[in-house]
Amino acid sequence: MSEKLRIIPLGGLGEVGKNMMCIEYGRDILVIDAGIMFPESDMLGVDYIIPDWGYLQDKKDRVHAIAITHGHEDHIGALPHFLEEFNVPVYATRLTQGLIEVKLKRNRPPAPVTLNTYAPGDVIPIGPFTIEPYHVCHSIPDGVGLGITTPAGLIVHSGDFKFDHTPVDGWPTDYAKLAEFSGRGVLVLLSDSTNAGQPGNTASEAVLNEAFHQVMRDAPGRVIVATFASLISRIQQVVDVAAQRGRKIAIAGRSMAENTKMARKLGYLDIPDETLIPLGEIDHLPPDKVVIMATGTQGEPTAVLSRLAIGEHRSLSIQEDDTVVFSSHTIPGNEELIHRVVNRLFQQGADVHYDPLSPVHVSGHASQEEQKLLLNILKPRFFVPIHGELRHLKQHGKNARQVGIPAENIAVVENGYELTFGDELEVGKRVPGGYVFVDGKRVGEIGPRIMREREILGRNGFLTVILCYDRDSGRPVSQPHIVTQGFVYEPQARELLDRASDVARSAAQVKPGTPPQAVEPAIEKALAKFLYQETRSRPVVIAKAIEHGV
Amino acid sequence: MSEKLRIIPLGGLGEVGKNMMCIEYGRDILVIDAGIMFPESDMLGVDYIIPDWGYLQDKKDRVHAIAITHGHEDHIGALPHFLEEFNVPVYATRLTQGLIEVKLKRNRPPAPVTLNTYAPGDVIPIGPFTIEPYHVCHSIPDGVGLGITTPAGLIVHSGDFKFDHTPVDGWPTDYAKLAEFSGRGVLVLLSDSTNAGQPGNTASEAVLNEAFHQVMRDAPGRVIVATFASLISRIQQVVDVAAQRGRKIAIAGRSMAENTKMARKLGYLDIPDETLIPLGEIDHLPPDKVVIMATGTQGEPTAVLSRLAIGEHRSLSIQEDDTVVFSSHTIPGNEELIHRVVNRLFQQGADVHYDPLSPVHVSGHASQEEQKLLLNILKPRFFVPIHGELRHLKQHGKNARQVGIPAENIAVVENGYELTFGDELEVGKRVPGGYVFVDGKRVGEIGPRIMREREILGRNGFLTVILCYDRDSGRPVSQPHIVTQGFVYEPQARELLDRASDVARSAAQVKPGTPPQAVEPAIEKALAKFLYQETRSRPVVIAKAIEHGV
Repeated sequence: MSEKLRIIPLGGLGEVGKNMMCIEYGRDILVIDAGIMFPESDMLGVDYIIPDWGYLQDKKDRVHAIAITHGHEDHIGALPHFLEEFNVPVYATRLTQGLIEVKLKRNRPPAPVTLNTYAPGDVIPIGPFTIEPYHVCHSIPDGVGLGITTPAGLIVHSGDFKFDHTPVDGWPTDYAKLAEFSGRGVLVLLSDSTNAGQPGNTASEAVLNEAFHQVMRDAPGRVIVATFASLISRIQQVVDVAAQRGRKIAIAGRSMAENTKMARKLGYLDIPDETLIPLGEIDHLPPDKVVIMATGTQGEPTAVLSRLAIGEHRSLSIQEDDTVVFSSHTIPGNEELIHRVVNRLFQQGADVHYDPLSPVHVSGHASQEEQKLLLNILKPRFFVPIHGELRHLKQHGKNARQVGIPAENIAVVENGYELTFGDELEVGKRVPGGYVFVDGKRVGEIGPRIMREREILGRNGFLTVILCYDRDSGRPVSQPHIVTQGFVYEPQARELLDRASDVARSAAQVKPGTPPQAVEPAIEKALAKFLYQETRSRPVVIAKAIEHGV
Repeated sequence: MSEKLRIIPLGGLGEVGKNMMCIEYGRDILVIDAGIMFPESDMLGVDYIIPDWGYLQDKKDRVHAIAITHGHEDHIGALPHFLEEFNVPVYATRLTQGLIEVKLKRNRPPAPVTLNTYAPGDVIPIGPFTIEPYHVCHSIPDGVGLGITTPAGLIVHSGDFKFDHTPVDGWPTDYAKLAEFSGRGVLVLLSDSTNAGQPGNTASEAVLNEAFHQVMRDAPGRVIVATFASLISRIQQVVDVAAQRGRKIAIAGRSMAENTKMARKLGYLDIPDETLIPLGEIDHLPPDKVVIMATGTQGEPTAVLSRLAIGEHRSLSIQEDDTVVFSSHTIPGNEELIHRVVNRLFQQGADVHYDPLSPVHVSGHASQEEQKLLLNILKPRFFVPIHGELRHLKQHGKNARQVGIPAENIAVVENGYELTFGDELEVGKRVPGGYVFVDGKRVGEIGPRIMREREILGRNGFLTVILCYDRDSGRPVSQPHIVTQGFVYEPQARELLDRASDVARSAAQVKPGTPPQAVEPAIEKALAKFLYQETRSRPVVIAKAIEHGV
């Protein structure tokens, strides 16, 4: 084991470090963040994806701690799974810890978890590392970046950040701390690449106040604002504008209600008691005195907004003169679902404001000029773009070259590549770094083979033919029974299925003594050919020839 | 049958008139366009969607003709299916007719088809209607809008259009004809809503020349430009810039090669012989003298670009220093597929220019100010926004109100609503207007039930248990056989499947004389419960209890 600094991004392919980052010096390891990714639309049946921490499996005694930058799902979502396997202390800020506790309550690891609170300004020695969290602006309060002093030099991990001079909580990113890091000399910067393709600077959250004022002023009736349950700052903004315009606020949806309660308790959300009303009481007020906060901006079928769109919410329904505001960005891949919900809300009679038609959302991530500002403040020797698909990382690499970081000091890599920092930056071999799918209780059991089966089943359905078979005579001794789903609508396809049955029966008439394992492939081949000829579709075809008593 | 004018948009829900428009006066019917829609990502196994023309089924003798506005798939793609059922003459411009002929060669209707060529300026009487095609700019040459004189008044159908003052073919939209229509008095305008949410004016295609010059100047090696095979104007632009910069052009992909050949033959594409080289010869030239035109901008797995991205194209592969340009917009729902291809092209070593990062594409559809210009020129009494999802139609309706069309004269409707134009605009009852899915040979057989089965199979897989059963004893007389796909990986799940087998066996021990149809649901229920407990997944569970000899 060489006494060199190594950084290994773990997690979803192409989403380097979005989910998990491993900092290693000699035998000592520090982990940063443990997030989930949402499945792409062709990852059928997958609930979510967690990082592949197989690399750490045989190094459990060497992992000192996990430090969390902020409380979004793509940074804390996999923590319950991680803590099941790694009983190490967790470091997080107060609000982030609150969000982690809500999560661990639902999904408790076997051993007790040590949750340590840290705050910007703290200096925390962990093994050979010293962590210094510093405040960053993002679309959730209490987010931090991390200075990590190692024997090899200082690493800065940007967290998810933007440079907002007028953030909702009045607490800008800590420039002084960044300058101080710079003064000490930064060996490596790991920085957020989400908006590497966006020219200029990301707009301040302050611009949304004007947008919300305008919407609430012009809306003839109720205003339903949808956003992520974890976008605590956005909830604060809506509350502030609603209060100024004399509207009351009700919260719809369990996760938003839980987060709101917790954030109020910890002092991160300031809602006067008289502004907040229970959802059940909104009908006692004139519609133009009501704002409802809800979830479902990504078109999630079980969230409040989707239920409203199809008129299936328990206690709420869309009224003529309702105005619905999607205050969120679109996670790529969700466009169709979101547009379907938008169309249906229009159908129900609401007016709908959504990105990019209305300026009702700003990003929480730095754009190109902010990324360059961070690079210019810190002047790191080495640069690793993190948090993004490969196309974002490539672009962030280009942005860094523009401010003078030499190409050989920039590592644009996908997950799992070992980066070693000595006199030079070396990109080493690749450790496991793929997808780990979570489906129900099963973690990592659903692999590429099952995904491929699901894809074919989903596209074409299946047809199973079953017959009792007598080995001695080489003849079927029952009618073929056909079971089929996802292929044809049986009542309409009687004739096709009868002919399929005949095909199976003929194919099952073989040489006396043939074992059933040899008959089945012959039946499958004959049936698949017949069905393709008739329909130009290729359902999964399975034959079972059953011997009596076996 | 009242002697009134009726307009009925047919086709995909929410995509009013994108696919097909029915103009009816008394007993006489004229159809405009017959396009396909591409399936959304949860429409598993669907190849494409055609309009539901069930309304016309019992009116075949009353349909006089079908008039086509331009040669894009969403306007001509369903024509072979339509002509199978309706043997009516087709009217189209020359290039559009060429594209239709290419299509009918692959998919020939049973009866001979009458293809009539029309051109801007023609005046064609068809039953009680008189059609006057007029030239419009769009992202394909030879597109038209239609003036349709009816006994009730003049309808203008905009086709897909933009107001481009410097189009590639030098032929702007025909303002004079529009002014003439206006002078005669326009009863109804049907107008393209695609970009109803885009403020301002759509940029001219001319701006792309500069972008292509820049890309071809800066690219150190080959430039691969991907676009739709039907974007003939874009191909022309790339050819022109390539010729000016001393690069040769090769065409990759069958559909683009076919369209290019046809468009050159008809004179819609001007490629000097010395500029075009066969794909096989590009290696004889220095890389910086080569441009390759290719398909695959939507991430279609079988198109050239996707094959290049995974290194599986027959004769081409990505080289270091290649530059790939996506000159296309993203069809909503394709984002993930496209980004995956972009990421993989980066992985292969190419530099990639894609929307919105680079200005290498402009829309072919009018933005808000152009839509208002059309409304202001024509001053229609009634307005029907067409060609878009409900959210686009609503926005187009808002745009029309801004230029003074009264709300009661605007019909924002989904497909299948009968619009009657008398003294007032009446929205009548709804005729069939849903999706008709095409899956292989099967048209319209794949309905909501099969789609639902496919969705569940795709998410969870299935497990079928089969056993021989003796009715007299009420006992299984064979081991249960399990067939499963998409649920567990069998070698890893041996123990789970053995226990499932035991569960099935126990459930199949029933009262003597019980018929198998009564045993099967009991087995299914017991198994489903067991599997959910063990995995928190719900595969489709099917039991078959087979009687010997039956």
